[in-house]
Amino acid sequence: MDALSVTRDGDTTTLTLTRPERRNVLALDVLEALTAAFEDVGRSDARGVVLAAEGPVFSSGHDFADMDGADLAAARHLFRTCTELMDTVQSIPQPVVARVHALATAAGCQLVATCDLAVAAASAGFALPGGRGGLFCHTPAVAVARAVGQKRALEMALTGDVVDAPTAAAWGLVNRCVPDDELDAAVADLLARATRGGRDSKGLGKQAFYAQVGRPQDDAYALAVEVMAAATQTADAREGVAAFLEKRRPELS
Amino acid sequence: MDALSVTRDGDTTTLTLTRPERRNVLALDVLEALTAAFEDVGRSDARGVVLAAEGPVFSSGHDFADMDGADLAAARHLFRTCTELMDTVQSIPQPVVARVHALATAAGCQLVATCDLAVAAASAGFALPGGRGGLFCHTPAVAVARAVGQKRALEMALTGDVVDAPTAAAWGLVNRCVPDDELDAAVADLLARATRGGRDSKGLGKQAFYAQVGRPQDDAYALAVEVMAAATQTADAREGVAAFLEKRRPELS
Amino acid sequence: MDALSVTRDGDTTTLTLTRPERRNVLALDVLEALTAAFEDVGRSDARGVVLAAEGPVFSSGHDFADMDGADLAAARHLFRTCTELMDTVQSIPQPVVARVHALATAAGCQLVATCDLAVAAASAGFALPGGRGGLFCHTPAVAVARAVGQKRALEMALTGDVVDAPTAAAWGLVNRCVPDDELDAAVADLLARATRGGRDSKGLGKQAFYAQVGRPQDDAYALAVEVMAAATQTADAREGVAAFLEKRRPELS
Repeated sequence: MDALSVTRDGDTTTLTLTRPERRNVLALDVLEALTAAFEDVGRSDARGVVLAAEGPVFSSGHDFADMDGADLAAARHLFRTCTELMDTVQSIPQPVVARVHALATAAGCQLVATCDLAVAAASAGFALPGGRGGLFCHTPAVAVARAVGQKRALEMALTGDVVDAPTAAAWGLVNRCVPDDELDAAVADLLARATRGGRDSKGLGKQAFYAQVGRPQDDAYALAVEVMAAATQTADAREGVAAFLEKRRPELS
Repeated sequence: MDALSVTRDGDTTTLTLTRPERRNVLALDVLEALTAAFEDVGRSDARGVVLAAEGPVFSSGHDFADMDGADLAAARHLFRTCTELMDTVQSIPQPVVARVHALATAAGCQLVATCDLAVAAASAGFALPGGRGGLFCHTPAVAVARAVGQKRALEMALTGDVVDAPTAAAWGLVNRCVPDDELDAAVADLLARATRGGRDSKGLGKQAFYAQVGRPQDDAYALAVEVMAAATQTADAREGVAAFLEKRRPELS
Repeated sequence: MDALSVTRDGDTTTLTLTRPERRNVLALDVLEALTAAFEDVGRSDARGVVLAAEGPVFSSGHDFADMDGADLAAARHLFRTCTELMDTVQSIPQPVVARVHALATAAGCQLVATCDLAVAAASAGFALPGGRGGLFCHTPAVAVARAVGQKRALEMALTGDVVDAPTAAAWGLVNRCVPDDELDAAVADLLARATRGGRDSKGLGKQAFYAQVGRPQDDAYALAVEVMAAATQTADAREGVAAFLEKRRPELS
């Protein structure tokens, strides 16, 4: 589809939203295409993923045309499809870095909050404008609140105003804010650091992280202990331990 | 009652603690009056609420006289009444902004942490002094920990020391810290931004936000998807979508 | 054992990791010794605990020798033992302050995140390098994510890179970052402030805090209301209330 391009460069797959004239709107078919693309990457031997976008806006979120006259069943299908995309981003083994060069709003902002890591250009911005416009950003607020905390997420969702990139970095919505002309280098640097070492161990780590992070600490430990014990039996861990003890570099997946 | 004044100015209702000579203590009857006042506002056509206080202290929290000789049943009643106030603040549809001009301690600090949004004057302060004084701030720590995170909440509750307003803003306990003489303007500005647009959509948004925010992400999405799908069927959302597609300003609730 | 020294100075017990030549590795027997030492302190009349370490590294986490050839049962035992240490730190009544003078990695970083409070020297650092080395820091990420939030914890766990002490303070992983030569004074100051006042009320407070902090807000309040009501019936609270009303200093536990 023309709304999304998928390119592979070395170990990195880049998914790029390519409908700048429509502000990279996340129409129903774009949501489906993104989910399918992330699933494909998840099954591939790529070691990392960049989510990028073209044009003056990163993404403006849902397509209002999808909601125009939609009945309850259609609306539920739309938001379930959107949530499936968010779940997919977090369920594939590869680290996913959002490359945010411009304004990300509503489900576009949610997508940034959902990616494992994010780098923003200094001129990027973030907003949850739905409440102001008649339809509160209920589902985007799920992801944003988990990144920036309660009062800041509510401020975004109630006011709809744009949070600038340095503030987003201070709040933990993105990992880093860099000058616009350093964005590509910063994304490449972060992804390189996030993907070096064992692919399998990091994939399992990412998946287990999301399984535990929102749960009470005792539940989280119950899960993490089992996963970590099982992980010691993998090839990556055995090689990592042996290499450490033999004082050589490990040869990991 | 003389401990609380309720005033309406345009679309905004202001609740003001008016017992400065008693440091705006949250005596049992004040807790009940505040809950009733928030419930009244919740049923009114006001679009926003300011919680303010008079005098040298914002609020010093519970009235120790209520605990003097109280048996277990009386103490449970007291803290249940206090928790009911906190729940009410978060359950009414209007955005509630705390206007914190001075020191807020114990349940007074909890009240600030509980309001949807908060603006602090630079000379304000925040403390959980109970543990130091013989009765740990157990219930205030519920609200404060959800605003500032684990280590900072424990520092406040264990030391009892005052956190200054700039630090409170950096930690997310308040949304903004401003010079003392800009407090009213900053509160008015934040409330105006938090209340513009659809009243109904924001009311539903606030309520759904608190229903999802402390839960595991999959539970949160399950709820938010249903609420958001249902919200598309409301007048606000239909008008918002139509206005967007017709490139006109929406006429919202 | 030679890996751990326990000293008592006034009201403070200091547990010091004393195997600098092995980078204060948390070998299975060190984990058990630390847990036993924390349990002993918990039953003692000490009012506060410092966790410190000697040498160029605070702690490098698990001993890879414990994992070399370990089968699943042995690995589960290892990580359960480690989790038991973390639970013990948070279950004893005394405030525990980590004195972090140098690099803390993997389970060493987890231990800092787990302590109630932490002070870092400016030259300290924090890392979760496991994923890079073949065995993801699954259990350390439980503690670190609860201190610094989702995106920052994932950045640490995926990249394995060192977070410097000022950044750790900004993120809430430690309460304070101070110049290296002020570390002891800052630890003593924070512990003194965290332990003054009623020992019993703070002990109950700390324990109730961990019981509520990761749970949905309504569950947290249900617990905190009961604990706080019961706490009003204790000697500390009765004395604190009486002293306040009589305008004298309380005599607390």
